[in-house]
Amino acid sequence: MKLLEERIQKDGTCIGTEIVKVDSFLNHQLDTALIRALGEEFARLFKDEQPNKVLTLEASGIPIAFAAAQALGDLPLVFAKKAAPSTMTEDAYTADVMSFTKGTVSTIRVAHQYLGPSDRVLIIDDFLAHGEAGLGLLKLVEDAGAKCVGFGAAIEKEHQGGHKRLEEKGIRVESLAVITSIKDGVISFNSKDL
Amino acid sequence: MKLLEERIQKDGTCIGTEIVKVDSFLNHQLDTALIRALGEEFARLFKDEQPNKVLTLEASGIPIAFAAAQALGDLPLVFAKKAAPSTMTEDAYTADVMSFTKGTVSTIRVAHQYLGPSDRVLIIDDFLAHGEAGLGLLKLVEDAGAKCVGFGAAIEKEHQGGHKRLEEKGIRVESLAVITSIKDGVISFNSKDL
Repeated sequence: MKLLEERIQKDGTCIGTEIVKVDSFLNHQLDTALIRALGEEFARLFKDEQPNKVLTLEASGIPIAFAAAQALGDLPLVFAKKAAPSTMTEDAYTADVMSFTKGTVSTIRVAHQYLGPSDRVLIIDDFLAHGEAGLGLLKLVEDAGAKCVGFGAAIEKEHQGGHKRLEEKGIRVESLAVITSIKDGVISFNSKDL
Repeated sequence: MKLLEERIQKDGTCIGTEIVKVDSFLNHQLDTALIRALGEEFARLFKDEQPNKVLTLEASGIPIAFAAAQALGDLPLVFAKKAAPSTMTEDAYTADVMSFTKGTVSTIRVAHQYLGPSDRVLIIDDFLAHGEAGLGLLKLVEDAGAKCVGFGAAIEKEHQGGHKRLEEKGIRVESLAVITSIKDGVISFNSKDL
Protein backbone atom coordinates (compact mmCIF):
# COMPACT_ATOMS: atom_id res chain seq x y z
CA MET A 1 0.00 0.00 0.00
CA LYS A 2 1.79 3.02 -1.37
CA LEU A 3 0.22 5.49 1.08
CA LEU A 4 1.66 3.59 4.05
CA GLU A 5 5.09 2.97 2.49
CA GLU A 6 5.44 6.68 1.73
CA ARG A 7 4.46 7.57 5.28
CA ILE A 8 6.99 5.13 6.73
CA GLN A 9 9.71 6.59 4.49
CA LYS A 10 8.74 10.13 5.52
CA ASP A 11 8.13 9.72 9.26
CA GLY A 12 9.56 6.34 10.32
CA THR A 13 12.80 6.20 12.31
CA CYS A 14 15.24 3.31 12.07
CA ILE A 15 16.80 1.85 15.19
CA GLY A 16 19.62 -0.49 14.17
CA THR A 17 18.68 -3.12 11.56
CA GLU A 18 15.65 -4.55 13.33
CA ILE A 19 13.32 -1.75 14.39
CA VAL A 20 11.36 0.91 12.55
CA LYS A 21 9.74 3.35 14.89
CA VAL A 22 6.38 4.71 13.71
CA ASP A 23 5.32 6.45 16.90
CA SER A 24 4.28 9.65 15.15
CA PHE A 25 1.41 8.11 13.17
CA LEU A 26 0.73 4.46 14.17
CA ASN A 27 1.99 3.52 17.61
CA HIS A 28 1.76 6.39 20.07
CA GLN A 29 0.28 9.30 18.15
CA LEU A 30 -2.24 7.99 15.62
CA ASP A 31 -3.15 9.48 12.24
CA THR A 32 -6.87 8.72 12.41
CA ALA A 33 -7.52 9.12 8.67
CA LEU A 34 -4.54 6.94 7.73
CA ILE A 35 -5.64 4.22 10.13
CA ARG A 36 -9.15 4.28 8.71
CA ALA A 37 -7.62 3.82 5.24
CA LEU A 38 -5.62 0.83 6.50
CA GLY A 39 -8.81 -0.66 7.91
CA GLU A 40 -10.58 -0.21 4.58
CA GLU A 41 -7.72 -1.91 2.76
CA PHE A 42 -7.89 -4.90 5.13
CA ALA A 43 -11.64 -5.08 4.51
CA ARG A 44 -11.06 -5.11 0.74
CA LEU A 45 -8.44 -7.85 1.03
CA PHE A 46 -10.33 -10.13 3.42
CA LYS A 47 -14.06 -9.56 2.89
CA ASP A 48 -14.38 -12.63 0.65
CA GLU A 49 -13.12 -14.79 3.53
CA GLN A 50 -16.33 -13.79 5.33
CA PRO A 51 -14.92 -13.13 8.79
CA ASN A 52 -17.52 -12.63 11.52
CA LYS A 53 -15.07 -11.36 14.15
CA VAL A 54 -11.77 -9.46 14.29
CA LEU A 55 -9.12 -10.33 16.88
CA THR A 56 -6.11 -8.25 17.90
CA LEU A 57 -3.72 -7.78 20.80
CA GLU A 58 -3.70 -4.77 23.10
CA ALA A 59 -2.63 -2.03 22.82
CA SER A 60 -1.31 -0.78 19.48
CA GLY A 61 -3.24 -3.33 17.41
CA ILE A 62 -6.56 -1.96 18.64
CA PRO A 63 -7.06 1.16 16.48
CA ILE A 64 -6.15 -0.62 13.22
CA ALA A 65 -8.30 -3.63 14.10
CA PHE A 66 -11.16 -1.29 15.06
CA ALA A 67 -10.90 0.43 11.67
CA ALA A 68 -10.90 -2.96 9.92
CA ALA A 69 -13.89 -4.23 11.93
CA GLN A 70 -15.75 -1.01 11.12
CA ALA A 71 -14.96 -1.30 7.39
CA LEU A 72 -16.08 -4.95 7.37
CA GLY A 73 -19.59 -3.88 8.39
CA ASP A 74 -19.17 -3.32 12.12
CA LEU A 75 -17.95 -6.76 13.09
CA PRO A 76 -17.32 -7.40 16.78
CA LEU A 77 -13.69 -6.82 17.73
CA VAL A 78 -12.01 -8.82 20.49
CA PHE A 79 -8.69 -7.70 21.88
CA ALA A 80 -6.53 -10.18 23.75
CA LYS A 81 -5.26 -8.86 27.07
CA LYS A 82 -1.66 -9.00 28.24
CA ALA A 83 -2.51 -9.04 31.94
CA ALA A 84 -5.51 -10.34 33.83
CA PRO A 85 -7.35 -7.53 35.64
CA SER A 86 -9.14 -8.48 38.84
CA THR A 87 -12.42 -8.23 36.91
CA MET A 88 -11.33 -11.02 34.54
CA THR A 89 -12.32 -13.97 36.64
CA GLU A 90 -13.59 -16.38 34.01
CA ASP A 91 -11.70 -19.10 32.18
CA ALA A 92 -9.59 -17.89 29.29
CA TYR A 93 -7.68 -19.19 26.31
CA THR A 94 -4.03 -18.27 26.84
CA ALA A 95 -0.72 -18.19 24.97
CA ASP A 96 2.76 -17.03 25.90
CA VAL A 97 4.15 -14.35 23.61
CA MET A 98 7.66 -12.92 23.61
CA SER A 99 8.09 -9.25 22.75
CA PHE A 100 11.44 -8.60 21.10
CA THR A 101 11.09 -4.82 21.53
CA LYS A 102 10.13 -5.03 25.21
CA GLY A 103 12.30 -8.04 26.10
CA THR A 104 9.47 -9.63 28.04
CA VAL A 105 7.13 -12.62 27.83
CA SER A 106 3.41 -11.92 28.26
CA THR A 107 0.62 -14.41 28.74
CA ILE A 108 -2.07 -13.15 26.39
CA ARG A 109 -5.66 -14.18 27.03
CA VAL A 110 -9.20 -14.09 25.68
CA ALA A 111 -12.13 -15.12 27.88
CA HIS A 112 -13.85 -18.29 26.68
CA GLN A 113 -17.14 -16.65 25.82
CA TYR A 114 -15.64 -14.36 23.15
CA LEU A 115 -14.22 -17.05 20.84
CA GLY A 116 -15.96 -20.24 19.79
CA PRO A 117 -16.41 -22.89 17.10
CA SER A 118 -18.82 -20.75 15.06
CA ASP A 119 -16.29 -17.93 14.65
CA ARG A 120 -14.42 -17.06 11.45
CA VAL A 121 -11.69 -14.86 12.84
CA LEU A 122 -9.60 -12.26 11.05
CA ILE A 123 -6.48 -11.44 13.09
CA ILE A 124 -5.14 -7.88 12.68
CA ASP A 125 -2.00 -6.40 14.20
CA ASP A 126 0.17 -3.36 13.67
CA PHE A 127 3.44 -5.24 13.07
CA LEU A 128 4.44 -8.65 11.76
CA ALA A 129 8.06 -9.26 12.75
CA HIS A 130 9.12 -12.65 14.14
CA GLY A 131 5.47 -13.69 14.24
CA GLU A 132 5.30 -14.24 18.00
CA ALA A 133 2.13 -12.22 18.54
CA GLY A 134 0.49 -13.65 15.43
CA LEU A 135 1.23 -17.24 16.44
CA GLY A 136 -0.01 -16.56 19.97
CA LEU A 137 -3.27 -15.08 18.67
CA LEU A 138 -3.62 -18.02 16.27
CA LYS A 139 -3.24 -20.44 19.19
CA LEU A 140 -6.12 -18.69 21.01
CA VAL A 141 -8.33 -19.06 17.91
CA GLU A 142 -7.42 -22.73 17.47
CA ASP A 143 -7.83 -23.54 21.17
CA ALA A 144 -11.36 -22.08 20.93
CA GLY A 145 -12.18 -24.35 17.98
CA ALA A 146 -12.67 -21.27 15.79
CA LYS A 147 -11.33 -20.83 12.27
CA CYS A 148 -8.69 -18.22 11.44
CA VAL A 149 -9.56 -16.85 7.98
CA GLY A 150 -6.51 -14.62 7.69
CA PHE A 151 -3.83 -12.51 9.32
CA GLY A 152 -3.34 -8.88 8.38
CA ALA A 153 -0.45 -6.67 9.50
CA ALA A 154 0.00 -3.01 8.75
CA ILE A 155 3.80 -3.31 8.60
CA GLU A 156 5.77 -6.49 8.00
CA LYS A 157 9.50 -6.83 8.51
CA GLU A 158 9.97 -9.66 6.00
CA HIS A 159 13.54 -10.48 7.05
CA GLN A 160 12.35 -11.43 10.56
CA GLY A 161 10.44 -14.46 9.27
CA GLY A 162 7.00 -14.10 10.84
CA HIS A 163 5.16 -14.19 7.50
CA LYS A 164 6.68 -17.58 6.66
CA ARG A 165 5.97 -19.00 10.12
CA LEU A 166 2.28 -18.08 9.85
CA GLU A 167 1.96 -19.36 6.27
CA GLU A 168 3.44 -22.68 7.37
CA LYS A 169 0.39 -22.95 9.67
CA GLY A 170 -1.85 -22.61 6.62
CA ILE A 171 -2.82 -19.00 7.28
CA ARG A 172 -3.29 -16.42 4.54
CA VAL A 173 -1.10 -13.42 5.42
CA GLU A 174 -1.49 -9.91 4.01
CA SER A 175 0.78 -7.04 4.99
CA LEU A 176 0.12 -3.51 3.79
CA ALA A 177 3.79 -2.46 3.77
CA VAL A 178 6.55 -5.08 3.52
CA ILE A 179 9.99 -3.99 4.69
CA THR A 180 12.82 -6.16 3.33
CA SER A 181 15.73 -4.49 5.09
CA ILE A 182 16.70 -1.68 7.43
CA LYS A 183 20.29 -0.59 6.90
CA ASP A 184 22.21 2.61 7.66
CA GLY A 185 18.94 4.43 8.18
CA VAL A 186 17.55 3.29 4.80
CA ILE A 187 14.29 1.33 4.72
CA SER A 188 13.77 -0.92 1.67
CA PHE A 189 10.35 -2.24 0.67
CA ASN A 190 9.04 -5.16 -1.32
CA SER A 191 6.52 -2.99 -3.14
CA LYS A 192 3.94 -5.04 -4.99
CA ASP A 193 1.97 -2.01 -6.11
CA LEU A 194 4.71 0.47 -7.00
CA MET B 1 -26.99 8.48 26.73
CA LYS B 2 -29.90 6.10 26.75
CA LEU B 3 -28.37 3.66 24.26
CA LEU B 4 -25.38 3.08 26.55
CA GLU B 5 -27.40 2.88 29.78
CA GLU B 6 -29.67 0.26 28.25
CA ARG B 7 -26.70 -1.75 27.08
CA ILE B 8 -25.10 -1.62 30.54
CA GLN B 9 -28.37 -2.78 32.12
CA LYS B 10 -28.67 -5.59 29.58
CA ASP B 11 -25.08 -6.86 29.38
CA GLY B 12 -23.15 -5.38 32.31
CA THR B 13 -22.22 -7.57 35.26
CA CYS B 14 -21.88 -6.24 38.80
CA ILE B 15 -18.96 -7.28 40.98
CA GLY B 16 -19.62 -6.15 44.54
CA THR B 17 -20.58 -2.48 44.92
CA GLU B 18 -17.62 -0.98 43.05
CA ILE B 19 -17.26 -2.69 39.69
CA VAL B 20 -19.44 -3.02 36.61
CA LYS B 21 -17.96 -5.37 34.10
CA VAL B 22 -18.66 -4.46 30.47
CA ASP B 23 -16.32 -6.94 28.81
CA SER B 24 -18.89 -8.11 26.28
CA PHE B 25 -19.21 -4.75 24.48
CA LEU B 26 -16.68 -2.18 25.69
CA ASN B 27 -13.62 -3.65 27.35
CA HIS B 28 -12.59 -6.97 25.85
CA GLN B 29 -15.07 -7.65 23.06
CA LEU B 30 -16.07 -4.37 21.42
CA ASP B 31 -19.37 -3.49 19.79
CA THR B 32 -17.93 -1.47 16.92
CA ALA B 33 -21.17 0.34 16.02
CA LEU B 34 -21.90 1.25 19.65
CA ILE B 35 -18.39 2.61 20.11
CA ARG B 36 -18.71 4.72 16.97
CA ALA B 37 -21.96 6.12 18.40
CA LEU B 38 -20.17 6.99 21.65
CA GLY B 39 -17.46 8.76 19.64
CA GLU B 40 -20.10 10.76 17.76
CA GLU B 41 -21.74 11.79 21.04
CA PHE B 42 -18.40 13.01 22.43
CA ALA B 43 -17.86 14.98 19.23
CA ARG B 44 -21.30 16.60 19.59
CA LEU B 45 -20.61 17.49 23.25
CA PHE B 46 -17.10 18.86 22.80
CA LYS B 47 -16.79 20.22 19.26
CA ASP B 48 -17.39 23.80 20.39
CA GLU B 49 -14.33 23.54 22.66
CA GLN B 50 -12.31 23.22 19.43
CA PRO B 51 -9.94 20.44 20.47
CA ASN B 52 -7.08 19.79 18.04
CA LYS B 53 -5.98 16.52 19.65
CA VAL B 54 -7.50 13.62 21.59
CA LEU B 55 -5.59 11.94 24.43
CA THR B 56 -6.36 8.61 26.08
CA LEU B 57 -4.66 5.83 28.03
CA GLU B 58 -3.91 2.37 26.66
CA ALA B 59 -5.57 -0.03 26.23
CA SER B 60 -9.33 0.10 26.63
CA GLY B 61 -9.58 3.86 26.16
CA ILE B 62 -8.19 3.58 22.63
CA PRO B 63 -11.23 2.44 20.61
CA ILE B 64 -13.57 5.04 22.13
CA ALA B 65 -10.99 7.80 21.77
CA PHE B 66 -10.37 6.70 18.18
CA ALA B 67 -14.09 6.94 17.44
CA ALA B 68 -14.21 10.40 19.03
CA ALA B 69 -11.15 11.62 17.11
CA GLN B 70 -12.69 10.31 13.90
CA ALA B 71 -16.02 12.03 14.59
CA LEU B 72 -14.24 15.31 15.39
CA GLY B 73 -12.86 15.45 11.85
CA ASP B 74 -9.95 13.00 12.08
CA LEU B 75 -8.01 14.67 14.86
CA PRO B 76 -4.70 13.11 15.84
CA LEU B 77 -5.08 10.71 18.76
CA VAL B 78 -2.30 10.20 21.31
CA PHE B 79 -2.44 7.30 23.70
CA ALA B 80 -0.36 7.40 26.86
CA LYS B 81 1.67 4.24 27.44
CA LYS B 82 1.79 2.30 30.69
CA ALA B 83 5.26 0.85 30.10
CA ALA B 84 8.24 2.17 28.20
CA PRO B 85 9.15 -0.14 25.28
CA SER B 86 12.82 -0.23 24.28
CA THR B 87 11.89 1.88 21.26
CA MET B 88 10.68 4.73 23.47
CA THR B 89 13.98 6.39 24.10
CA GLU B 90 13.02 10.06 24.08
CA ASP B 91 12.02 12.26 27.00
CA ALA B 92 8.45 11.86 28.15
CA TYR B 93 5.88 13.55 30.35
CA THR B 94 4.98 11.09 33.11
CA ALA B 95 2.46 10.58 35.89
CA ASP B 96 1.85 7.79 38.39
CA VAL B 97 -1.62 6.28 38.20
CA MET B 98 -3.13 3.72 40.54
CA SER B 99 -5.51 1.15 39.09
CA PHE B 100 -8.11 0.05 41.63
CA THR B 101 -9.19 -2.91 39.47
CA LYS B 102 -5.63 -4.14 38.87
CA GLY B 103 -4.21 -3.18 42.25
CA THR B 104 -1.10 -1.72 40.65
CA VAL B 105 0.55 1.65 40.07
CA SER B 106 1.64 2.45 36.53
CA THR B 107 3.82 5.27 35.34
CA ILE B 108 1.98 6.55 32.28
CA ARG B 109 3.90 8.52 29.70
CA VAL B 110 3.64 10.56 26.51
CA ALA B 111 6.76 11.48 24.54
CA HIS B 112 7.48 15.21 24.55
CA GLN B 113 6.92 15.72 20.83
CA TYR B 114 3.26 14.65 20.95
CA LEU B 115 1.97 17.26 23.40
CA GLY B 116 2.85 20.95 23.41
CA PRO B 117 1.70 24.48 24.25
CA SER B 118 -0.31 24.85 21.03
CA ASP B 119 -2.50 21.83 21.82
CA ARG B 120 -6.15 21.96 22.92
CA VAL B 121 -6.56 18.46 24.27
CA LEU B 122 -9.76 16.48 24.76
CA ILE B 123 -9.15 13.56 27.15
CA ILE B 124 -11.32 10.48 26.56
CA ASP B 125 -11.43 7.29 28.62
CA ASP B 126 -13.73 4.31 29.00
CA PHE B 127 -14.34 4.73 32.76
CA LEU B 128 -14.35 7.57 35.24
CA ALA B 129 -14.20 6.06 38.72
CA HIS B 130 -11.89 7.56 41.36
CA GLY B 131 -10.40 9.80 38.69
CA GLU B 132 -6.86 8.45 38.97
CA ALA B 133 -6.37 7.94 35.22
CA GLY B 134 -8.05 11.24 34.37
CA LEU B 135 -5.90 13.20 36.83
CA GLY B 136 -2.77 11.46 35.53
CA LEU B 137 -3.64 12.31 31.92
CA LEU B 138 -4.43 15.89 32.96
CA LYS B 139 -0.99 16.16 34.58
CA LEU B 140 0.64 15.11 31.29
CA VAL B 141 -1.31 17.82 29.44
CA GLU B 142 -0.43 20.48 32.01
CA ASP B 143 3.24 19.46 32.18
CA ALA B 144 3.37 19.92 28.39
CA GLY B 145 1.96 23.43 28.68
CA ALA B 146 -1.09 22.34 26.66
CA LYS B 147 -4.71 23.17 27.48
CA CYS B 148 -7.21 20.51 28.49
CA VAL B 149 -10.56 21.49 26.93
CA GLY B 150 -12.52 18.65 28.51
CA PHE B 151 -12.69 15.14 29.84
CA GLY B 152 -15.13 12.60 28.46
CA ALA B 153 -15.84 9.17 29.93
CA ALA B 154 -18.12 6.52 28.51
CA ILE B 155 -19.14 5.27 31.96
CA GLU B 156 -18.87 7.19 35.21
CA LYS B 157 -19.29 5.68 38.64
CA GLU B 158 -20.43 8.86 40.35
CA HIS B 159 -20.13 7.52 43.89
CA GLN B 160 -16.37 7.02 43.46
CA GLY B 161 -15.74 10.76 43.21
CA GLY B 162 -13.59 11.14 40.11
CA HIS B 163 -15.97 13.62 38.45
CA LYS B 164 -15.73 15.99 41.39
CA ARG B 165 -11.94 15.70 41.59
CA LEU B 166 -11.57 16.64 37.90
CA GLU B 167 -14.07 19.50 38.13
CA GLU B 168 -12.13 20.90 41.08
CA LYS B 169 -9.21 21.25 38.65
CA GLY B 170 -11.42 23.40 36.43
CA ILE B 171 -12.07 20.71 33.84
CA ARG B 172 -15.41 20.26 32.07
CA VAL B 173 -16.46 16.63 32.53
CA GLU B 174 -19.03 14.77 30.42
CA SER B 175 -19.96 11.14 31.03
CA LEU B 176 -22.30 9.29 28.68
CA ALA B 177 -23.70 6.98 31.37
CA VAL B 178 -23.58 7.98 35.04
CA ILE B 179 -23.90 5.15 37.55
CA THR B 180 -24.94 6.31 41.02
CA SER B 181 -24.86 2.97 42.80
CA ILE B 182 -24.26 -0.74 42.36
CA LYS B 183 -26.11 -2.80 44.94
CA ASP B 184 -27.28 -6.42 45.06
CA GLY B 185 -26.70 -6.72 41.33
CA VAL B 186 -28.80 -3.62 40.56
CA ILE B 187 -27.21 -0.73 38.68
CA SER B 188 -28.81 2.70 39.21
CA PHE B 189 -28.23 5.61 36.86
CA ASN B 190 -28.41 9.37 37.07
CA SER B 191 -30.22 9.63 33.75
CA LYS B 192 -30.33 13.17 32.43
CA ASP B 193 -32.05 12.20 29.22
CA LEU B 194 -34.54 9.58 30.38
